[in-house]
Amino acid sequence: MKILGIDPGSRKAGWALIEKKGRKTIYLSSGTLRYDKIDNFMDRLGVIYASIEELMKEHSPDEVSVESLIYVKSVTSLAKLAQARGAMLAAIIPSHKGKVFEYSPNLIKSAVSGYGHADKSAIEKTMKMIFGKIEFSTNDESDALAIALCHALNAGKVIIGNKKTKSSSRSLKSVFKDRI
Amino acid sequence: MKILGIDPGSRKAGWALIEKKGRKTIYLSSGTLRYDKIDNFMDRLGVIYASIEELMKEHSPDEVSVESLIYVKSVTSLAKLAQARGAMLAAIIPSHKGKVFEYSPNLIKSAVSGYGHADKSAIEKTMKMIFGKIEFSTNDESDALAIALCHALNAGKVIIGNKKTKSSSRSLKSVFKDRI
Repeated sequence: MKILGIDPGSRKAGWALIEKKGRKTIYLSSGTLRYDKIDNFMDRLGVIYASIEELMKEHSPDEVSVESLIYVKSVTSLAKLAQARGAMLAAIIPSHKGKVFEYSPNLIKSAVSGYGHADKSAIEKTMKMIFGKIEFSTNDESDALAIALCHALNAGKVIIGNKKTKSSSRSLKSVFKDRI
Repeated sequence: MKILGIDPGSRKAGWALIEKKGRKTIYLSSGTLRYDKIDNFMDRLGVIYASIEELMKEHSPDEVSVESLIYVKSVTSLAKLAQARGAMLAAIIPSHKGKVFEYSPNLIKSAVSGYGHADKSAIEKTMKMIFGKIEFSTNDESDALAIALCHALNAGKVIIGNKKTKSSSRSLKSVFKDRI
């Protein structure tokens, strides 16, 4: 099963594709989508939608894992992030109804690193430890990989909205026991 | 030129179609899209996108006028409204790049009723006065008509983002001098 992880953003967004085969999880590819050079926000929303639509066509994931909305401090930033996230989800949901999952940042960090408040560089290090040497272009890219992995670990446990749930009973160690 | 006005919302959204022929503006149709029975927000975003996509196909507007984002008090409501708006715009922008315009609520009210703080019922009354007896199902529908009309009056004056600009120098009276 191919899982696409997305770390949404209005200026840039990370994405990562992994494949879950039984108890094994393999890294396939990842990258960063950049929108920060498009000043007009309307145009940017169009590009955001098109970029995710293209990503979906290119990789045909079976399931998609997205970070739930972060309530950033600035209302203006929240409004832009939320509109960008809405445009991204619009490119995914029509073809993947019931196959889009969202996880809170704390749950993602906790599931992949064992610590709910791990910082971005700690997540990047953990991802490299698990999947080998990957040159991440941004932290959004490594976060997207963590988002995809979180779903691989939690698959079947649907988390709707921003409700926090307990982390999966399957620990990271049980999944990656050969590596860590 | 056909103008589609949209009053975005995450639970329901108003829409209205008008035609601008020279200095005349004719009402064509309007309605309310309802999403409030869909509890799962992911599913709702999918329906929101699909409903606007269908509306665009059905009416083929030349230009689209959308109310700019209102900074509602509740952060949760803002997050939902903004994601819904992002999904709606994703259904419009790819086929209408450069033909989507947004106006602030105050500018819309001021342009169509002469008073920037007019309430929803005052807007509804003004719309009926201008376009004749229309049975509006919701205030969102009459607001959408005001949004479309605001663009007809302001056409050519592109308002990007939430910046307030002066209302058009063409007054409502000069456009509808036969009726009011």
